[in-house]
Amino acid sequence: MSYMEAIGRQAKEAEKKVRILGQTEKNRGLRAAAEMLCARSGFILEENEKDVAMAEKRGMKESLIDRLRLTSERIEAMAEGLMQIADLEDPVGEIVSMKTRPNGLRIGKKRVSLGVVGIIYESRPNVTADAFGLCFKNGNVTILRGGSDAACSNKAIVQVIREGLVKENLPETAVLLVEDTNRAHVTEMLRMNSYIDVLIPRGGKGLIDHVVKNSTVPVIETGTGNCHVYVDEYADLQMAVNIIDNAKTQRTGVCNACESLVIHKNIAKEAIPAIYERLNKKQVEIRGDEAACAIQPGILAASEEDWGTEYLDKIISMKTVSSIEEAIEHINTYNTGHSESIITENYTNALKFQDEIDAAAVYVNASTRFTDGFEFGYGAEIGISTQKLHARGPMGLEALTTIKYIIFGNGQIRR
Amino acid sequence: MSYMEAIGRQAKEAEKKVRILGQTEKNRGLRAAAEMLCARSGFILEENEKDVAMAEKRGMKESLIDRLRLTSERIEAMAEGLMQIADLEDPVGEIVSMKTRPNGLRIGKKRVSLGVVGIIYESRPNVTADAFGLCFKNGNVTILRGGSDAACSNKAIVQVIREGLVKENLPETAVLLVEDTNRAHVTEMLRMNSYIDVLIPRGGKGLIDHVVKNSTVPVIETGTGNCHVYVDEYADLQMAVNIIDNAKTQRTGVCNACESLVIHKNIAKEAIPAIYERLNKKQVEIRGDEAACAIQPGILAASEEDWGTEYLDKIISMKTVSSIEEAIEHINTYNTGHSESIITENYTNALKFQDEIDAAAVYVNASTRFTDGFEFGYGAEIGISTQKLHARGPMGLEALTTIKYIIFGNGQIRR
Repeated sequence: MSYMEAIGRQAKEAEKKVRILGQTEKNRGLRAAAEMLCARSGFILEENEKDVAMAEKRGMKESLIDRLRLTSERIEAMAEGLMQIADLEDPVGEIVSMKTRPNGLRIGKKRVSLGVVGIIYESRPNVTADAFGLCFKNGNVTILRGGSDAACSNKAIVQVIREGLVKENLPETAVLLVEDTNRAHVTEMLRMNSYIDVLIPRGGKGLIDHVVKNSTVPVIETGTGNCHVYVDEYADLQMAVNIIDNAKTQRTGVCNACESLVIHKNIAKEAIPAIYERLNKKQVEIRGDEAACAIQPGILAASEEDWGTEYLDKIISMKTVSSIEEAIEHINTYNTGHSESIITENYTNALKFQDEIDAAAVYVNASTRFTDGFEFGYGAEIGISTQKLHARGPMGLEALTTIKYIIFGNGQIRR
Repeated sequence: MSYMEAIGRQAKEAEKKVRILGQTEKNRGLRAAAEMLCARSGFILEENEKDVAMAEKRGMKESLIDRLRLTSERIEAMAEGLMQIADLEDPVGEIVSMKTRPNGLRIGKKRVSLGVVGIIYESRPNVTADAFGLCFKNGNVTILRGGSDAACSNKAIVQVIREGLVKENLPETAVLLVEDTNRAHVTEMLRMNSYIDVLIPRGGKGLIDHVVKNSTVPVIETGTGNCHVYVDEYADLQMAVNIIDNAKTQRTGVCNACESLVIHKNIAKEAIPAIYERLNKKQVEIRGDEAACAIQPGILAASEEDWGTEYLDKIISMKTVSSIEEAIEHINTYNTGHSESIITENYTNALKFQDEIDAAAVYVNASTRFTDGFEFGYGAEIGISTQKLHARGPMGLEALTTIKYIIFGNGQIRR
């Protein structure tokens, strides 16, 4: 039996116990894990220090070391996250629908745990507690494979979470860590269809693409966001400028930030200078097509590549169009299926944009930055799915569940 | 550009048009395709004859030739199928939920088309019309890859469906056929993540396993069914015998047929002879464990392999257990996540079984044969999913849709 197969078997064994835990038990487990994280904060910091020292020795960039480094505040934040998950309503067990068929069979759909969830992530050790919390709340077993940079930290966090579970007489194998960060184990993990029900990669585009391309286990893809704001000819200009400013600059390094503007020609002469003025103040570089450059000095010439680029930086592209149809065509060609917004006071155009744009979230007169599990009222976020199967857009707890048909008969046989 | 990439691009172009078709237009297309199938029945039969002649020449088994052969009745049945799909309610466009957030954003979830659906199937040419109909109803583009045995038939059916679409001024590329049945194209199709949103394999275990193991495109797995009936110690014996008879013998070659019995020891002495008597009359071979063989002469000794076997034949395995816990453990070990049934008059055991069995459909006092889109009231069936992601159990039209968030604002920006 291989190293990964042994973990897979442990997960399958644990699944039987975890799946049938009641809400109270699961919430007790989450709270005990949170308390243990605080109580054992010193131990976690010690182990984290080993990772940080190694990273410094290897010359890791300061910004990455900062993501890797834990502090007692960060550990408290992890614990607080688990407490918040405990406070959320449990989606598992809900009877989504129930009906009676002509033959008297009562057929219900019940929300149940998914089973075994594999999470593959990079250097931020806080994902370890967070992923466990979301999965355990739904009665799932988690197999965590974190980055090698955070190996000691992740091991310590998982050990402490398990101490919390054991304290409450809950199965400690509800959370399993791939401690050996040999990459061959990841390759094997991606093909463990008999042991893992779903894989969720969390991290950069490289990691996500690798998992999507190589996994035979079903994957939930949390992809990149090349998000657009389209300023329709009937836009309220002041609103447009405020929304663009917010969508671009409130936080630049996130997937729901705006990366590209589309401007209707009939409003371009007023809109472009106003947008330029505001973005220029915030040090945002604009790369526009010919018409945009002709209207506003200071806009740089965009290349074809710009239309498809997620900058995650203080840069934005700007395309002018002659019609809403052209805007929709442009966005549907270059977007990544994440979040798109139209600014308009025109009723027909608002609905047309929402109908015809192919993306997880389509806004009228609002910032794309709202695409987020907390902003959508889910109380938690597993990620933002840019695929169409199973879950699309911000994923709350429900995304880690499935349904089961429960059928009540009194002797029915099929004719 | 490769042969398959050209098809992928055609599909993506068609998707833009098909996705936004209204219900009336889609239903007109389905009815026109149905009428054209009847009108051009002679042409389809001629082309089908070529496939049949080739199959006979190659010495194909008569039962397989029968599945391949079309008759005017079978073509009428295909047309009737499309008419029935046209009559169903369109799931696309439904606003599943809509709420207002504290900041005034109205956030809705709308049911929309999936996009491009790839279907890989074997020799039955009726799947061609059926798969097109289900996909088109939901505003999806279909890429069909049928078996090489039915190449001429599939080509003719797709051509005729397209004639129907064209007659109604609808995009004929809504349905695309991989005419060149070279296997290398299938290999390529399984990795066309940029062009195909979901793949559904329809056929035998070999085909399904191949697709699941090799595809990087998300797959909906319509798997095998090793379905159990558990006769609890509190079972109504007459009901148990009737349900077992039905679940095993009403149709043996289907995935929701019962393949294995689990009998509580406290009822075994009465139950096993009664079950044996009924199944023996229907020429069903029983393979039991030691205890079962000891109770009833005529039961053959089961091997370990029998517990995991989907016979699809007049054979059934029989395991005796000392408790409901042991029954649940046995079923969760050997089942394929399809359909399981408990026969009991005991309230606590009925609920325990439903809670703890991990399968798409869990019955109390009814035949497993009801796991079916039509029996569940969906009016159509795409297949029965044995995976947990996206769809589980019988899939109706909804399984070929996804959701899109539609958000109505009036200038909201994120703080």
